Amino acid sequence: MACDCSASSAYSINTKDEKTKSWKKLVNVAVSGAAGMISNHLLFKLASGEVFGQDQPIALKLLGSERSIQALEGVAMELEDSLYPLLREVSIGIDPYVVFEDAEWALLIGAKPRGPGMERSALLDINGQIFAEQGKALNAVASRNVKVIVVGNPCNTNALICLKNAPNIPAKNFHALTRLDENRAKCQLALKAGVFYDKVSNMTIWGNHSTTQVPDFLNAKINGRPVKEVIKDTKWLEEEFTKTVQKRGGVLIQKWGRSSAASTAVSIVDAIRSLVNPTPEGDWFSTGVYTTGNPYGISEDIVFSMPCRSKGDGDYELVKDVAMDDFLWERIKKSEAELLAEKRCVAHLTGEGNAFCDLPGDTMLPGEM
Amino acid sequence: MACDCSASSAYSINTKDEKTKSWKKLVNVAVSGAAGMISNHLLFKLASGEVFGQDQPIALKLLGSERSIQALEGVAMELEDSLYPLLREVSIGIDPYVVFEDAEWALLIGAKPRGPGMERSALLDINGQIFAEQGKALNAVASRNVKVIVVGNPCNTNALICLKNAPNIPAKNFHALTRLDENRAKCQLALKAGVFYDKVSNMTIWGNHSTTQVPDFLNAKINGRPVKEVIKDTKWLEEEFTKTVQKRGGVLIQKWGRSSAASTAVSIVDAIRSLVNPTPEGDWFSTGVYTTGNPYGISEDIVFSMPCRSKGDGDYELVKDVAMDDFLWERIKKSEAELLAEKRCVAHLTGEGNAFCDLPGDTMLPGEM
Repeated sequence: MACDCSASSAYSINTKDEKTKSWKKLVNVAVSGAAGMISNHLLFKLASGEVFGQDQPIALKLLGSERSIQALEGVAMELEDSLYPLLREVSIGIDPYVVFEDAEWALLIGAKPRGPGMERSALLDINGQIFAEQGKALNAVASRNVKVIVVGNPCNTNALICLKNAPNIPAKNFHALTRLDENRAKCQLALKAGVFYDKVSNMTIWGNHSTTQVPDFLNAKINGRPVKEVIKDTKWLEEEFTKTVQKRGGVLIQKWGRSSAASTAVSIVDAIRSLVNPTPEGDWFSTGVYTTGNPYGISEDIVFSMPCRSKGDGDYELVKDVAMDDFLWERIKKSEAELLAEKRCVAHLTGEGNAFCDLPGDTMLPGEM
Repeated sequence: MACDCSASSAYSINTKDEKTKSWKKLVNVAVSGAAGMISNHLLFKLASGEVFGQDQPIALKLLGSERSIQALEGVAMELEDSLYPLLREVSIGIDPYVVFEDAEWALLIGAKPRGPGMERSALLDINGQIFAEQGKALNAVASRNVKVIVVGNPCNTNALICLKNAPNIPAKNFHALTRLDENRAKCQLALKAGVFYDKVSNMTIWGNHSTTQVPDFLNAKINGRPVKEVIKDTKWLEEEFTKTVQKRGGVLIQKWGRSSAASTAVSIVDAIRSLVNPTPEGDWFSTGVYTTGNPYGISEDIVFSMPCRSKGDGDYELVKDVAMDDFLWERIKKSEAELLAEKRCVAHLTGEGNAFCDLPGDTMLPGEM
């Protein structure tokens, strides 16, 4: 019976001989879509200590489906065979009300892939239902301060659905992953300017994780100087740069025949590390967050990617002193309009009445089926 | 034309603005089978600094095939998008004489998988030819002190073929990967004893990476005490333990539908780290090495997994003071006999005359096609 597999503990080791270690309290990390390729990269990074630190023991709580439960057992075996000293527990299951229990982090990767010819609205509905259910489960059983990172697409609106279904968890705790977009944007600026990656800072992705996303070259810096002072090719910045960032996943799937699981996993690591480590002085990072009280004039009550800073306590604050010009603002408004339309599409899942779907065109990022 | 892709530099960044950093000299790491799943995990670990250290810049030189060159371009793109500050260069190609140039490490993962019904002898011949060619290429163009880790199966005999075709590189520099076997053995002992993984030490895998491999519970320790003092279940140790270790890959492929790419990559990381970091006092690690001058009485001139220690300089020495009993020795002799038979099978590839193949049964590890 399917229920029998639910949260079966694949591996749990007696900790009685470890009392003398001055390690931190165990952190519970739940991951959905745990049998998929993104997770297959991510779980080993979580277990190795590169995300939460080399003194942070971790329990992994893996959510799969009936179809994937055997694969999850295989993943748990491979994690065992990797002998990670920080990995204290791996549990697997198919019931989010069990798997999310006491979760302090929930990394929501699992989502239905878009089938051939499927409209974005249909995908919003199918995946929205998954995230509504997972929001309810988090609300019922997770840590009251659980941090949630939504990766499954369309991730902004999925995050909105999730937080609306989890009223007892602060809306501020929900994130939609736009870090891969940020990383790709930094990469393109570094390549264009001929500098190392780490010379590019203050990179914002504004808006939706879709083709309306806005990589912000007005505020980004290279070697501490405005991008426009370093890259004089304005035509490239205005016409090519954003397209290149957006098409990256599509080019990759053409060449590689797979979606970008490894670099997505790296960007999830980056997103978490940005919340558990203090942001370097003067810099910021991008994450899709709930827009309540935002200083930019973006509509309230959606999930929108914006520039943020963290003290390293898992929380963040919005960066307030960013410049705006017409070119940037017009694009931000377009992404905002799309998110408002997506929100109307899923009103039945957020408890806001009947859905009305008038999505403008197909704005799924290429390579994200 | 295929040749045009050979070692095309997918990405190389100007280093002139980095002269002030006190980082070490760039290390050149070549990886074959770079478009495969093991590499897909390994390359990101190499680039992140977790293998060679956070102060060690790295150049990755990726060897693929005509068929996989596009996929390799995709891998290079994902590595770019990950913004690893230590990753200074990624080059890709299909000619080992170009890709292996100046390589200081060569991680030879690529090999033909065994087709249905294929005999081990046929696999030895097909893959042996690949490793003969790669040995010649290393001999011609790699660093004179290149360290070579052979992962592609049958890895012990492939390593022997490789080193025989690279007479100008010290035979001591060639390794066959038995670290995944060691990790799996440690995991099983930890689970049986109910202790953490890192309480198991001094684990040797003797012999061939095949079903004749010998996980050594006579010398292994748990919490510093002999395994036999901690695990009183001798029947389990003698009859179940070894089988469980050997069948692990097979069980995994049954459950997960894939071979153990992630944990294999972790074990390659462990194998390299064991050579570039000093071995902890009193402990050792297993690696398949050339048997010349071994103190155990194992036949000379084969590649055999044995207990080794390192000063952290990339080199190793054999551990000499290990205990032996009849049970252990008999099993070691059986694995030795198999490796001698494999050697006779590939005499045409090692320059030792005509091959004569009398392999005893099928000893491929389950899950390794």
